Amino acid sequence: MWKPDRTSNRPLYQQIASYIEQRISFGEMPPGSSLPSERKLAQQLGVNRSTVMQAYENLRAAGMIESLTGSGTRVCRGESGVAPKQTPNWNRYVESGTFLPNLPLLRRIREALQSGVPLVNFAGGELAPELAPSDAIADIMREHPFRETLSYGDPQGFVPLRVALTSFLLEQRHIQATDESILVTSGSQQSLYLITQCLLNPGDAVAIEQPSYGYSLQMFQSAGIRLFGLPVDEDGVHPDGIRALHKQHRIRMVFLNPNYQNPTGTVMGAERRIEVLACCEELGIPIVEDDPFSLTAMEDAPPPSLKSLDRNGTVLYIGSLSKVAASGLRIGWMVAPHTVIRRLADARQQMDFGLSIFPQWIASRLLESSSFAPHLARLRAALRTRRDSMAAALHRKLPGEISFELPRGGLNLWCRINGDVNDSSLLESGIKNGVVFMPGSVFGAEAGFIRLSYARLPLEEIEMGIDKLAQALCRTSAT
Amino acid sequence: MWKPDRTSNRPLYQQIASYIEQRISFGEMPPGSSLPSERKLAQQLGVNRSTVMQAYENLRAAGMIESLTGSGTRVCRGESGVAPKQTPNWNRYVESGTFLPNLPLLRRIREALQSGVPLVNFAGGELAPELAPSDAIADIMREHPFRETLSYGDPQGFVPLRVALTSFLLEQRHIQATDESILVTSGSQQSLYLITQCLLNPGDAVAIEQPSYGYSLQMFQSAGIRLFGLPVDEDGVHPDGIRALHKQHRIRMVFLNPNYQNPTGTVMGAERRIEVLACCEELGIPIVEDDPFSLTAMEDAPPPSLKSLDRNGTVLYIGSLSKVAASGLRIGWMVAPHTVIRRLADARQQMDFGLSIFPQWIASRLLESSSFAPHLARLRAALRTRRDSMAAALHRKLPGEISFELPRGGLNLWCRINGDVNDSSLLESGIKNGVVFMPGSVFGAEAGFIRLSYARLPLEEIEMGIDKLAQALCRTSAT
Repeated sequence: MWKPDRTSNRPLYQQIASYIEQRISFGEMPPGSSLPSERKLAQQLGVNRSTVMQAYENLRAAGMIESLTGSGTRVCRGESGVAPKQTPNWNRYVESGTFLPNLPLLRRIREALQSGVPLVNFAGGELAPELAPSDAIADIMREHPFRETLSYGDPQGFVPLRVALTSFLLEQRHIQATDESILVTSGSQQSLYLITQCLLNPGDAVAIEQPSYGYSLQMFQSAGIRLFGLPVDEDGVHPDGIRALHKQHRIRMVFLNPNYQNPTGTVMGAERRIEVLACCEELGIPIVEDDPFSLTAMEDAPPPSLKSLDRNGTVLYIGSLSKVAASGLRIGWMVAPHTVIRRLADARQQMDFGLSIFPQWIASRLLESSSFAPHLARLRAALRTRRDSMAAALHRKLPGEISFELPRGGLNLWCRINGDVNDSSLLESGIKNGVVFMPGSVFGAEAGFIRLSYARLPLEEIEMGIDKLAQALCRTSAT
Repeated sequence: MWKPDRTSNRPLYQQIASYIEQRISFGEMPPGSSLPSERKLAQQLGVNRSTVMQAYENLRAAGMIESLTGSGTRVCRGESGVAPKQTPNWNRYVESGTFLPNLPLLRRIREALQSGVPLVNFAGGELAPELAPSDAIADIMREHPFRETLSYGDPQGFVPLRVALTSFLLEQRHIQATDESILVTSGSQQSLYLITQCLLNPGDAVAIEQPSYGYSLQMFQSAGIRLFGLPVDEDGVHPDGIRALHKQHRIRMVFLNPNYQNPTGTVMGAERRIEVLACCEELGIPIVEDDPFSLTAMEDAPPPSLKSLDRNGTVLYIGSLSKVAASGLRIGWMVAPHTVIRRLADARQQMDFGLSIFPQWIASRLLESSSFAPHLARLRAALRTRRDSMAAALHRKLPGEISFELPRGGLNLWCRINGDVNDSSLLESGIKNGVVFMPGSVFGAEAGFIRLSYARLPLEEIEMGIDKLAQALCRTSAT
């Protein structure tokens, strides 16, 4: 985002005025479009409100913008000669489309993070930059001459990566797959998107754990999917829950996140996995097994994946490198029966002509590199340190006010707030106090939960962030 | 695709049988799923039909597959103890989904290309590997240390790439844009997909040139868009055509491909651009200007882009590196008003969490590299040679049977076949004779047109391909 240049001799208000003028003249802010309020723009640009007022005054005087009481400031409709011009009504267009905008709370968090105001970020469920295997990747790029062809690739993904994944999945998760049953995706998000777009119809009933990351995904709503929550005990969902829902709603698919479930951190028990798989096999309901976290195990390894137990083609297995290497790489995968893989590959091809060769090439080298296993070991140790540091800070700063179970893997602490709070006012109070996190309602949880990610920050910022959280919590409870 | 190992001592039929057995036991071919016919599998694997028959016989004897008269060969439904198992009905699932499968003719072409039988490929609209700036890219990877953070990136795209694009667009296409009005996409396909998913509603009427690449895009149908064709003269579409369609159908958007239009090669005239823009401005209809080919100009540069004439925010401009650098890079862009960019960035974030940092980093370095301008000059010269070579071969081998205008840019020759032919039988005859191309109906053209790409093949294969085409044509006309 553009900011005025404070080292320039040109007054700030003039810089701001010409920045806006330029955008108007390029058609970036078409006639009739709204300008931000003076207060909001001042905050975004980090200047005084009076500076923005002066800039707007200049633009008004030049006839470029107009302010109408009650409806804010807008770009003037130009009157240029010949035919009357009508700008496309972009505001109406952007409200169209079958694809829904993100949840308001998620947009608020992103907006706060983009505002430029420094915030401790407990919201982002990803690894801190220093936890990524950056050196290994830089080495790959420098040392392995890139000689792959630069044509449109195989719709299912780069073959050497699919081959590397067959060994990786066998070794790490005991999943037997061949390269033909693997679709390379840009991550779990794309895998889920393809499933909702290609295997489900509007109106279809889908069962997910409650709470679950799935509730934060507008993609289900965009596709017209009806979501139903499955109760979760300490061993995960129970077959009885699936049976009950199926009887009532004819469930078309079950989405599960068996290892260090997002957001609760629950691990589905080994016995439970066998029972749930048997139940879904009996009912003929496919399971989507979303498994981003299994390699972040900080204590014992999780039980066998559902896919490794599946001999019937019931499980669509989803994984990615986002939570164990780097989210910016954008490499994930799906293991599924051939018919499914082909259908999804065809659709993805139509949506974006497939993935870039570069991240696929890097990922294939990374998986085969001797530095990947040591990287995973380091990552697990680092996550353990961060998790413990966050837990200690919470015990110290908020004793009795927040309770949680220590997760045995994953990137998040799931915290119950002992007391009456409202999700969005707590979030606003957090932002005011310099910290963001995920309110529980994003995951379809009852009031009074938040998800704190310990993976994204530098270790030394965790304690400071918990301080800010404590302040936010104390001020919300006070009001 | 797996092939039996001919150097092994193990008989081919045994190799094939255990390959299938393995896939069945991993759940990749679930109980009840169909196996290919013996003839088809034999062709795919490049073995005799009797070898496949023997493999199937072994699997049948082992109780793994069963052949039923009239319904082919299927994987047996296993009977394993406790509860009766029901495989998810994957065939029904893959027929679900709002996203439609590719056009049958396009699937047929892809299937033929993947079959392993060598085919001269005039169908793929992309550059031959030797035309890509592979050395420049390998240099970038080797010489510039990669130091970008590996987190989820900016939803609008890597900022240095957006900044590089502002200079590139200004210099090459006189488009004034700022980094805030640019969305980096994975190519024109993704740009179009985001537009249809986010700015249009099911039932909306959209006008496109007839013929047009747009007719090959199932994404319009998947989104429930009603497509209406605009007649095209030697200067492109005419405002009267737009007015007439708008009056009848209330057009919500106009998609244009003004430079070396795909498939016809037409260049919209300079005057016509001004008239069409004025017409759409007057009617308040947005224009999507798809401009993949302008930098392939082999003679004179094309007239100014519509976007460079737009001061009103009427034009959404789409470009990419696919046709001028490398399709496997998967980098494209859109220039649009801020409201549109933000809506599309938000949706893309929800679909796939944005693009990988690697192709974006490489593209930003490539655009700024001193070798990019010489690359473009070499590319134009090479395309000219190929175009002329194809034209000469057509004149030589098919005089009087095929007519075409020499395109001044782009990757394709649009040919009218002088005589009665049926698109799909011509394609089948082509495949039999060892050549594939795009039948005109894929682009919504009347019967008797084909699109031949001269860009994808090694120069020396063009003549041989035209030979095969001549054979195919002669045999189709004969039948």
